[in-house]
Amino acid sequence: MTKPLFRKVVIFGVGLIGGSFALALRRMNAVDEVVGFGRSAQTLVQAQQLGIINRSGSDLAAELGDADLVLLATPVGQMAEIMARIAPHLGAHTLITDGGSTKCDVVNDAYKHLAAHISRFIPAHPIAGSEQSGATSARADLYQNKKVILTPLPENSTDTVARVRLAWELCGALVSELTPKQHDEVFAAVSHLPHLLSFALVHDLAQRENRDLLLSFAASGFRDFTRIAASSPEMWRDISLANRDALLIEMGRYMSELETLRNALAEADGNKLEEIFSIARSVRSNWTSQ
Amino acid sequence: MTKPLFRKVVIFGVGLIGGSFALALRRMNAVDEVVGFGRSAQTLVQAQQLGIINRSGSDLAAELGDADLVLLATPVGQMAEIMARIAPHLGAHTLITDGGSTKCDVVNDAYKHLAAHISRFIPAHPIAGSEQSGATSARADLYQNKKVILTPLPENSTDTVARVRLAWELCGALVSELTPKQHDEVFAAVSHLPHLLSFALVHDLAQRENRDLLLSFAASGFRDFTRIAASSPEMWRDISLANRDALLIEMGRYMSELETLRNALAEADGNKLEEIFSIARSVRSNWTSQ
Repeated sequence: MTKPLFRKVVIFGVGLIGGSFALALRRMNAVDEVVGFGRSAQTLVQAQQLGIINRSGSDLAAELGDADLVLLATPVGQMAEIMARIAPHLGAHTLITDGGSTKCDVVNDAYKHLAAHISRFIPAHPIAGSEQSGATSARADLYQNKKVILTPLPENSTDTVARVRLAWELCGALVSELTPKQHDEVFAAVSHLPHLLSFALVHDLAQRENRDLLLSFAASGFRDFTRIAASSPEMWRDISLANRDALLIEMGRYMSELETLRNALAEADGNKLEEIFSIARSVRSNWTSQ
Repeated sequence: MTKPLFRKVVIFGVGLIGGSFALALRRMNAVDEVVGFGRSAQTLVQAQQLGIINRSGSDLAAELGDADLVLLATPVGQMAEIMARIAPHLGAHTLITDGGSTKCDVVNDAYKHLAAHISRFIPAHPIAGSEQSGATSARADLYQNKKVILTPLPENSTDTVARVRLAWELCGALVSELTPKQHDEVFAAVSHLPHLLSFALVHDLAQRENRDLLLSFAASGFRDFTRIAASSPEMWRDISLANRDALLIEMGRYMSELETLRNALAEADGNKLEEIFSIARSVRSNWTSQ
């Protein structure tokens, strides 16, 4: 038997992201032991029953000194606090990575709270979101052929980046690299904005007196457009706040775009409407999700 | 053998909507002969090869006098012209229905151009849209368990409405009734607005210099949110113009909603964001498409 990549992995947050990472590494025999921490004792018990973790941890000092890898897989709003709590106990060789959907804020938090360990903190964002959450939605194949973006820091050595990259590749992911700022701008446009727009549409309809009538006639277009409006409110509150600057720019752009559409409609400018729809259709039809 | 419901059905526009109606009726042996009219000779040849129509028509006067049912299944922008052309030739017993996605405008056109036949015009809207279009996308089971909304007119007799209802039911559809105005308000909210929002997002991204980079990181949330942005530009131009008043009201509401969200984000008001997201998630999670 070859030696596993990691002897001990410690995961904070054993839900969809953290739980699936653990299941994938365990299935590949890439880890001897997975220890879980989390806010909910019940979730940790469930995660153990589901074979996600070997056991739940209780003593940070006891668990972190000999950990090979720590994954922070909580909503981004909790990461600063967890970083501050784990920093005193991390081993001299412990790698740290995360699964946060935003990167500039997590990197800022890391410079502040993980300063002594910053060379071993390799930020990551697995693009495997789902409107589902919780340990029960974790799956060993969640990352299969999904993109994971690393946003390495200047302080990271090539070796540490390669090791974290390998962990995600063992999970089946296609790993690429961006700077934290590039990452946040890209995801404000293609992920965070669409989530806000979808939440906004359903919230708008939810306020109506005739809501039930409206929803009874909603069909497949509505179904797909609003699938992401069933996502975790807490997670998306945190993402929105964490990527506020880039997201405000995207919202501004989008509202101008709507203003253009509204004017074209108010003026019954069919050519303008058709031009906008045609460009959109052409780009969307040529795009395929990887 | 029982007698089929219709001896002769004439269809204008043998694409997704009209073609699927023909295929469904033929499969149920509910019609002896289907005759197709359309702008493109090539499409009509294709429709005949696909078993959608028995033959393409060339002479309105010859085909309409003995037709039991005429279905107008063109984009709504073409309906007025077709109504004006067919009116002189319709038989005294010919029923007329349509598959338009908006109803007030079609009804107005009918009062204007089908005046002598208005008692036999029963407007309909099959909720079985797709981003696909054309004869090749027609399917005999398109309407299976899909909603079809009739918006009967005061001039319609119970018998004529029942007969058109039966035709859609034989296609497998679940038929309900609204007034034309109710219909247009409902669909502005749950269908037309989401389509415009989806087109707007893709059009916005399409303008960017880094469009390819952005799209390379777009994932399943983007995929579903923008599926309807691949819909027919011509059809959605016509729908937007036809339902302009209701759609402008919906756009105004939605832009206020976005303004609220943007303010909450600008003020980093996490509670407000989470409240909006939570209401949306709750309503969306409890909704199931029928």
